[in-house]
Parts: sequence; structure tokens; C-alpha cells
Amino acid sequence: MEKKIITISREFGSGGRTVGRMVAEKLGIPFYDKELVDQIALETGFAPKFVEEHGEHSPGKSLFAYAFTSQGVPGVMNGLSTADFLWNIQCSVILQIADKGPCVIVGRNADYILKDRPEALHAYVFADIPYRAERIVRRYGESDKSPEARLHEKDKRRRVNYQHYTGRTWGQAQNYDICLDTGVLGIEQCADIICSIVEKSKKE
Amino acid sequence: MEKKIITISREFGSGGRTVGRMVAEKLGIPFYDKELVDQIALETGFAPKFVEEHGEHSPGKSLFAYAFTSQGVPGVMNGLSTADFLWNIQCSVILQIADKGPCVIVGRNADYILKDRPEALHAYVFADIPYRAERIVRRYGESDKSPEARLHEKDKRRRVNYQHYTGRTWGQAQNYDICLDTGVLGIEQCADIICSIVEKSKKE
Repeated sequence: MEKKIITISREFGSGGRTVGRMVAEKLGIPFYDKELVDQIALETGFAPKFVEEHGEHSPGKSLFAYAFTSQGVPGVMNGLSTADFLWNIQCSVILQIADKGPCVIVGRNADYILKDRPEALHAYVFADIPYRAERIVRRYGESDKSPEARLHEKDKRRRVNYQHYTGRTWGQAQNYDICLDTGVLGIEQCADIICSIVEKSKKE
Repeated sequence: MEKKIITISREFGSGGRTVGRMVAEKLGIPFYDKELVDQIALETGFAPKFVEEHGEHSPGKSLFAYAFTSQGVPGVMNGLSTADFLWNIQCSVILQIADKGPCVIVGRNADYILKDRPEALHAYVFADIPYRAERIVRRYGESDKSPEARLHEKDKRRRVNYQHYTGRTWGQAQNYDICLDTGVLGIEQCADIICSIVEKSKKE
């Protein structure tokens, strides 16, 4: 079965987004990362920054606070919490994008949302803490927290969100078709491996 | 860093052993699967069948029974349970094999035992239940139990053994450098991907 849609789930700082962009460029197909956030923002009416912050994170206090604020607006969120509302729109946007044709989708639990699509290839990209810590400082700069603390926090939020909405364990190999350690294999080689799988699938 | 040693951890029925054999043949390096069992059997004095049965399985009742039987033989197992004795010898044999030079080692928690060797590439090979069920019936024939029950039992025993001796979660992507679904990618392509990583590492 030809693999036309590639989902990339990734640990923060692992370079998964870059792997995704490289794959999209090499294969000449659309790339959805920030574009996905903008689309979800458009459909929900939330600010892109809010969607980016909460689309992959645990439904926590701040989101429930939003939900209570919005309960007085009938019809907008159908009584759903903001997190659940966001999740529903996210699913719908990702399914629509997948229907449009070949593409690469980064993050947003797209592996789960498209788990029943045989034309989808699901990749998980990760790396060890020192590799990711060095990368996030280089890309996003220093902050008050240590890079290790920032990684642990982000890892935890993605893990909890994934578990909550999918019932699956974040980073469990069986959720994906291939898992790649960018720290060991390098970002470019990870992109090459994914592209070679897609190219081979066209010949089957 | 050149990857000279390849460990293949695998779900029962996924074809991980075949992937390992193909990689060893393509790279022209020794392959340790049954050979490892024989070596451990030689060093422990246990029958190869016993080592094969218990080397990757949870320290359960039958092993404790063995341990009690053996307590009266001073110096043989140094007061260790049979399972722990087997684990110690297994670690020592795998470390010796890795010291000898390039090779492929299948199973026996070699990923953990060689986790601090930068020249080792750790692969995890898995597949979904229907794919594996069909394979084990084809390879090992029918039995009283359903193939699904046989898979669940073997999966559980390997998972518990791995958790017990390594403290890690079986099948968690972060324990390996690459994880491959043979059901989706095919056994030959999985072997090719591993070989290409090894070949590329020689040029770095």
C-alpha cells in the first residue's frame, strides 16, 4: 500500500519538525505544522498561540477555567471543556487534511487520529536528554529553567495529553510504524529513511 | 561512530530473528541467537532448552523451585536464584561476544547489557497481533492454545523479565536507536534499513 501521508510524532527538541520538513521537501508534498495550528485557530476562534500551547498539552487548570468562562456562550462549544472542544476540531482538521492528498503532519496526535488509514506511515522521533537540551538552547535560547527541566515539563504535558485522548502510552513503539533516535542516527538520515520507505511503498 | 554490534530485540513472531540473520549475512558478520543459548548453556551447565525457555522469561515459580533445589550445592550458584544466576552468566557471555568484534545478537536483553557501548546499534522489531499470529502458526504449527493466547503469554513473560532485570519498559522506543514494524515495512526492508545505517556509520 502506497504511503501517502506521513505523521511525525516527536519529543520536544528531538528535531522531529525538521525531519518532517525535510521529508516534505524531498517528496515534494505539503507540510503541516504551524499551518495546522493556524487552521485549528481559524476553526475554533482561538488565538494560534493558544492552540499551539494547548493542542498537545494536558487538559489542566487553565483550560478548565476557560471552559467555565465559556459556558455562558451557548452553541459555541456545546458544553465541552475547552480542551475537548480543541481536540474535536483538531481531529476534524487533521482528517480533512488527510483527505486532501499526500502530506506530512507533525504532532497533534495525528498518529492516533489517522491510525486506521493504511495509506499513512506513522513515525516517532526522539533523542536522549543531553542531545535535546543542547538543541533547545541553540534554537530557543536560555530561560529561567534549566533545559532539562523544560524538556521534562514538555515531555510530561505531551505524554499526559496523548494518554488522555488516545488511551495509549506516549513513545510506545507499537503505536508507530517506525521510531528513530535523531541523536544516534542524525536528522538527515532519519528523513532519508522515511523517504526511502515512502518511495519503496510506491513500487508495491 | 561506526556501529559494529547490532542488537535485535523482538516481539515473538515478528520476524526479528530473520531480520537479524539477514543483517548478519548482508554485513558478513557473526550471528548469535541459538549460538548464544548454547554458549550460556555451556557456562551454566543447564540444558540449552532450559536456557532458551528461561533466559528471557520472568523469574517464576519453576525457577524458584530450581533455586531451592540447588541451595545445597555450595559454590555453584553462590546463593543466587537460578534466574539471577542465568542472568549473570548471560550478561557475561554477551559482553564477551561484544568484545570479540562485529556481530548481530538477537534477544536476551542485549540492548540493555550493551547500552553503554557506543559502537552498538539497538533495534527493536515488532508487529501487530494478526501478522504475528499468522507467522507463528506457519512457522511453529498449531497448538492447544490460540495463536493470540500464545503471543500474549510470550509477550508478557518477556516484558516481565525485561522489566525485572533492566528496570525499563519493554517496547518503549527510547530504549532503542530504531524500532521497526515488520508487518508494515516487511522483513527484508527492515534488514535493509539496519544495514544502511551500519554502512553509513562506517563513513562517519
